[in-house]
Amino acid sequence: MNTMTDTAALAAAAAAVVATVAEETAAPSFRDELLAAGLLIDTGENGLYGRSQVFEDVVDRLNIAITHLGADQQPEVLRFPPAMRRTDFEDSEYLKSFPDLAGTIHSFCGNDMGHQRLLRALDDAMVESDGDRSDSWMAQQKPTRVVLTPAACYPIYPVMARRGPLPAGGRTIDVLSYCFRHEPSLDPGRMQMFRQREYVRLGSAEQVMAFRQMWIERGSLLVTLLQLPVEVDLANDPFFGRGGKIVADSQRAQALKFELLIPVANPGSKTACLSFNYHMDHFGAIWKIACEDGTVAHTGCVGFGMERLTLALFRHHGLDVNAWPDDVRALLWGDTAARVAHGMQSTQAASAQDAGDSV
Amino acid sequence: MNTMTDTAALAAAAAAVVATVAEETAAPSFRDELLAAGLLIDTGENGLYGRSQVFEDVVDRLNIAITHLGADQQPEVLRFPPAMRRTDFEDSEYLKSFPDLAGTIHSFCGNDMGHQRLLRALDDAMVESDGDRSDSWMAQQKPTRVVLTPAACYPIYPVMARRGPLPAGGRTIDVLSYCFRHEPSLDPGRMQMFRQREYVRLGSAEQVMAFRQMWIERGSLLVTLLQLPVEVDLANDPFFGRGGKIVADSQRAQALKFELLIPVANPGSKTACLSFNYHMDHFGAIWKIACEDGTVAHTGCVGFGMERLTLALFRHHGLDVNAWPDDVRALLWGDTAARVAHGMQSTQAASAQDAGDSV
Repeated sequence: MNTMTDTAALAAAAAAVVATVAEETAAPSFRDELLAAGLLIDTGENGLYGRSQVFEDVVDRLNIAITHLGADQQPEVLRFPPAMRRTDFEDSEYLKSFPDLAGTIHSFCGNDMGHQRLLRALDDAMVESDGDRSDSWMAQQKPTRVVLTPAACYPIYPVMARRGPLPAGGRTIDVLSYCFRHEPSLDPGRMQMFRQREYVRLGSAEQVMAFRQMWIERGSLLVTLLQLPVEVDLANDPFFGRGGKIVADSQRAQALKFELLIPVANPGSKTACLSFNYHMDHFGAIWKIACEDGTVAHTGCVGFGMERLTLALFRHHGLDVNAWPDDVRALLWGDTAARVAHGMQSTQAASAQDAGDSV
Repeated sequence: MNTMTDTAALAAAAAAVVATVAEETAAPSFRDELLAAGLLIDTGENGLYGRSQVFEDVVDRLNIAITHLGADQQPEVLRFPPAMRRTDFEDSEYLKSFPDLAGTIHSFCGNDMGHQRLLRALDDAMVESDGDRSDSWMAQQKPTRVVLTPAACYPIYPVMARRGPLPAGGRTIDVLSYCFRHEPSLDPGRMQMFRQREYVRLGSAEQVMAFRQMWIERGSLLVTLLQLPVEVDLANDPFFGRGGKIVADSQRAQALKFELLIPVANPGSKTACLSFNYHMDHFGAIWKIACEDGTVAHTGCVGFGMERLTLALFRHHGLDVNAWPDDVRALLWGDTAARVAHGMQSTQAASAQDAGDSV
């Protein structure tokens, strides 16, 4: 045994390890690439980014494609600001499941003296530390009557309830808003503020289940047309705490949630870019939404994560939109309506063929 | 003196007063009309509304007209979510002037036991009162590192500072976001969440002043093309507290703020639909934004209140967009680019004519 050789071998091995670590460290993350390309703009807070004109253009064009995809449903288009009434939020039972993700809005409601105290506390905090300031100036902040919207569909249920019983065909609503979730992360696919586009269905259990199945197919079609990998899987929401596991298992056992997963931040992990949800009569019972026959309405929704879908496109087709595949460019910036319609016809024909084959 | 007659006259006068009061009470407010027409959707919270497809379409078309109006400036388009980093917000000195309007975002950061306490407090509050619930469940909410954006331009200054000195020509940025101001009101022109579109100029004092003068003219042109009454006036921000009056007077004395005012909620009062602001070196000094020559950058902006402009159109042209004047419809839904360009040429020609006349 040659000690020198062993030592040399060890040294070489050690050098290789160092090189590998260095390479991994040096390899820019997808987030770094997005920031360097100026597609996302760093604000200094994880999960809070500005968007460039190019990024926003992709979001806009995706929204148009989604509109064409749902046009035959003749949805009612409603747009809400990114906050909702606090009492409605409390009623929703969101706090039972996701207390850690919610954002409540607080304001200063004091007088001149209180204002002086606030400014003194702020001054002290700024002098004390530049990096990690005290939040003592917020001692006087009081909860307002509004909270940030946790998911785009939340504001619509109380509005629908006030309209009285649903028509026989139920209702389909098209919503879009910025949503907030308090989960600071370096993963660009996990933002604190992001946009959800949703189609929401209110009606009988059968109507909602048929709607969800249709959107699993249509959502998969959209992602196929965008030349992104399609994988739809059973899923659960990130319920809070020790009891959360039980609720999550129950949600899975009842097959209430499916997600369309695409690798975004890195090839090894997948991000839910669309979700297909069946709420049963949860929201219908809370807000007393009735079907035409007086039974409690069921609800469900398909949610499109607009930032996540956009990021998936940049991840899989590159950061230069001009170099994206021709068919993807044509879908987004060309004859969007015709290509979506053609895709839907082909899918329907294939389904009919399958049905014929199975007879 | 005929007592009977006097009594009858008094009774008649009293009846007339009652009738007038009843008439005023019965006359639906503009807010009522907007809600009845479904253009705004009531959420139960003053100043927080859903928007119909028609309302949003007007907002979108106004945004396109504003884009054409500023296209020759070749602005950099940036879009930020409706929240910003708290330390940047603290640095901005917004809390000195408008502590009452700001909205800070708070989240639950506790464990399972804390969650149980939260849910018990929420249950108690819901049992106690349906109308005015206690906010005791929020005892555990902690300030997060983000706050709601108070004006669309606030997120951009720290971003611009990080880029280093401005180029010789300065910079012009195009931003749009939902903003929050805690001022619940029945006036539909005073929402808690609303959109601001802004062009922001960063450069020398001369560059910023020329920009602001140009936008007073262009903003007035847009409003003229929309066939709305144009009145530009010196203005001040609603500074908080006893000291606020002094700051407001100083702002007026220095002519830092102008507003374009249009009657919206009722004919007797006017609402600022556009504002033209010169910040001097306030933001430049706070974030150390330098001009090419090393001097502190001055900044200014023109802000378009998207909801307010939209409401002004409904107020002055009626709730049915199909019945709006042909030229207004053509501007918004027709040859927007050509009509904006023609309006700008006519204005420039008139200015040149005026200049010629005055020689």
